[in-house]
Amino acid sequence: MWRQLLPIGRDAASGGYRRFAWTRADSECRRWFEEQARGRGLTYEIDRNGNQWAWLGEPARGDAVVTGSHLDSVPDGGAFDGPLGVVSAFAALDELRRRGARFAKPLGIVNFGDEEGARFGLACVGSRLTAGALTVEQAHRLTDGDGVTLPQAMEAAGHDPGAIGPDPERLDLIGAFVELHVEQGRALDLSGDRVGIASAIWPHGRWRFDFRGEANHAGTTRLADRRDPMLSYAGTVLAARREAELAGAVATFGKIAVEPNGVNAVPSLVRGWLDSRASDQKSLDAVVDGVRQAARAHAREHGVTLDVERESFTPVVEFDHALRDELARILGGDTDLRVPVLGTGAGHDAGILSGRVPTAMLFVRNPTGVSHSPAESADEDDCVAGVLALADVLEGLACT
Amino acid sequence: MWRQLLPIGRDAASGGYRRFAWTRADSECRRWFEEQARGRGLTYEIDRNGNQWAWLGEPARGDAVVTGSHLDSVPDGGAFDGPLGVVSAFAALDELRRRGARFAKPLGIVNFGDEEGARFGLACVGSRLTAGALTVEQAHRLTDGDGVTLPQAMEAAGHDPGAIGPDPERLDLIGAFVELHVEQGRALDLSGDRVGIASAIWPHGRWRFDFRGEANHAGTTRLADRRDPMLSYAGTVLAARREAELAGAVATFGKIAVEPNGVNAVPSLVRGWLDSRASDQKSLDAVVDGVRQAARAHAREHGVTLDVERESFTPVVEFDHALRDELARILGGDTDLRVPVLGTGAGHDAGILSGRVPTAMLFVRNPTGVSHSPAESADEDDCVAGVLALADVLEGLACT
Repeated sequence: MWRQLLPIGRDAASGGYRRFAWTRADSECRRWFEEQARGRGLTYEIDRNGNQWAWLGEPARGDAVVTGSHLDSVPDGGAFDGPLGVVSAFAALDELRRRGARFAKPLGIVNFGDEEGARFGLACVGSRLTAGALTVEQAHRLTDGDGVTLPQAMEAAGHDPGAIGPDPERLDLIGAFVELHVEQGRALDLSGDRVGIASAIWPHGRWRFDFRGEANHAGTTRLADRRDPMLSYAGTVLAARREAELAGAVATFGKIAVEPNGVNAVPSLVRGWLDSRASDQKSLDAVVDGVRQAARAHAREHGVTLDVERESFTPVVEFDHALRDELARILGGDTDLRVPVLGTGAGHDAGILSGRVPTAMLFVRNPTGVSHSPAESADEDDCVAGVLALADVLEGLACT
Repeated sequence: MWRQLLPIGRDAASGGYRRFAWTRADSECRRWFEEQARGRGLTYEIDRNGNQWAWLGEPARGDAVVTGSHLDSVPDGGAFDGPLGVVSAFAALDELRRRGARFAKPLGIVNFGDEEGARFGLACVGSRLTAGALTVEQAHRLTDGDGVTLPQAMEAAGHDPGAIGPDPERLDLIGAFVELHVEQGRALDLSGDRVGIASAIWPHGRWRFDFRGEANHAGTTRLADRRDPMLSYAGTVLAARREAELAGAVATFGKIAVEPNGVNAVPSLVRGWLDSRASDQKSLDAVVDGVRQAARAHAREHGVTLDVERESFTPVVEFDHALRDELARILGGDTDLRVPVLGTGAGHDAGILSGRVPTAMLFVRNPTGVSHSPAESADEDDCVAGVLALADVLEGLACT
């Protein structure tokens, strides 16, 4: 099953995946999902927002237990981010059938569309539309790099865009959603555990720092006469690292724009973007306030003006405590498996759904912590441990 | 005379000049030069490389004294860089005629074409071609941002490109070249002098620093697991400032390229360009070696690899010592005028010619030191002092 999926949308040169929403590679992944569903005798359907569902039992009965993830990828992404959760869902069902489990509730397996947002610039479009966290008007304005709108892309891929929008009736049928995902960090590797339970998605945001100085001749302008924003920026980059270390958080300056960006010109403008995330709001505030203060001091030092603008912000997403405790109880019964509870800095469909449905996440160990890269990996033994843990959870939640 | 030139090629929005080689603005400047020459009864000619000349007396007699500069500009340049030297040349001739000076040698006034290199990316094209410092083959390969080659641009502006190339016969006729230029720094302003004599053009070069780390997820990668080249770059930018301060030199990181340059991605590559200049080779070596060492240490600290490549280098240009001393002697006779000797970090046509012809430069005070910007300025009194100093020099060199 895993092997069939591996070649789809893989770039021969980089070894990375390019499975973007509503492309040919995405359609091939979707065909694979449908085959897996039908091959197991499950009821297959695609919802109004392009998410795929495979049902064991009658979902209309309600209180369904649903698992799954996504099959699309970032540019040059790895094989595990997304697909591991979908493949593990089918494999867990196989395991439960092998065990002869008797289902008391409907079981659903889902592939959410366009989780990574690589094509249209917004993550979790499939789950956002379904949860009403993205309006139809907003969705109509989404455009890819070639000027193709989301509705046009859906239509070209054979999906009717006329019906997209909130789907509360569908969400009302779900009693619990559990997403399995490869860890995008090394917490499990460091603690020596194969599988973990998510506590929360960290609050995170993006801030734009505009340092404005004075363009000047790099050869003739005395150092004392310069107002060089690159120096203020450099000091701020190093301060962000220090503040993040102090708070046990992360902070990154990964994008920059410079004007006039000439070798022999002192810049007039250096624009840097800060991405920061922390386990709680107080820590995140401490980091961002610290960076802002340092930036102000470095701007003053070099006669540069500073403007800081928050471009986006997502508050903490706490996963359902009762469901999390239930998962810990189910998995704690297995004496071979210690299951730590950990936070994550990345967004997920589970985070979107958690506002509407009791939601939980399982993480599988990533020995390098590398993510969104062809170097992303998970050991086979750990993947098997993930499938067995998911099977235990589904059995505990859905079976008699 | 100055007022006629002021509106040509001025951008209404920025107030800066856009007089690029072989454009309409350039042609208007050239027409102005020809009118000034003919209006004074001078012999006008344009040479094979598009430089304009105005002669008093018969240049074929040899040992000519030549002065002048250029009329083209950088994008959004100031009014003085270049034109001040050409306008002052005509004004100095007017002053000498007023004084009833008798010329023992031919006097030439020159407007060198394409000094700033704003259109074709190479500075001093007119003087380089004439001096043989740019080959015809190299000149044919010069292309502007729209794909127009230098010969095509010349032809479109009505100049035959078929004859471009070295012009040693012309240079052999010149006994001394003196270029007057607005200072591109604040040395005269700080010393309280109106006019200075150039000692040398500082040695200068460009070095490319490639910091390579590992692209990673900015939200989920622990700080300790990162190999973030932005941190190494930031430390290096600050080190360059310190090294330049220590050596009394200048060092600038004004251009940067980042991959993938995404807000939520630790960069895989940060490429920064260092421009550094110093009064002597030893000081420049000290700066660049110091920055390189610091960069290596910052790379090591963050698990990043470093490659440094020197992209260009120009050794020190010492202006002719005998001519410099002659100028100091001539101007030193005027008790009202103290004339300091100072170096400069900028390139000039005078620097190109100095390999072939005894060459000197005069600088006029720039109260802000700002250059290559609409804010570039010089006081009227200082410009008059510059004209009088240039007249004294021409009188001392060319008159009986």
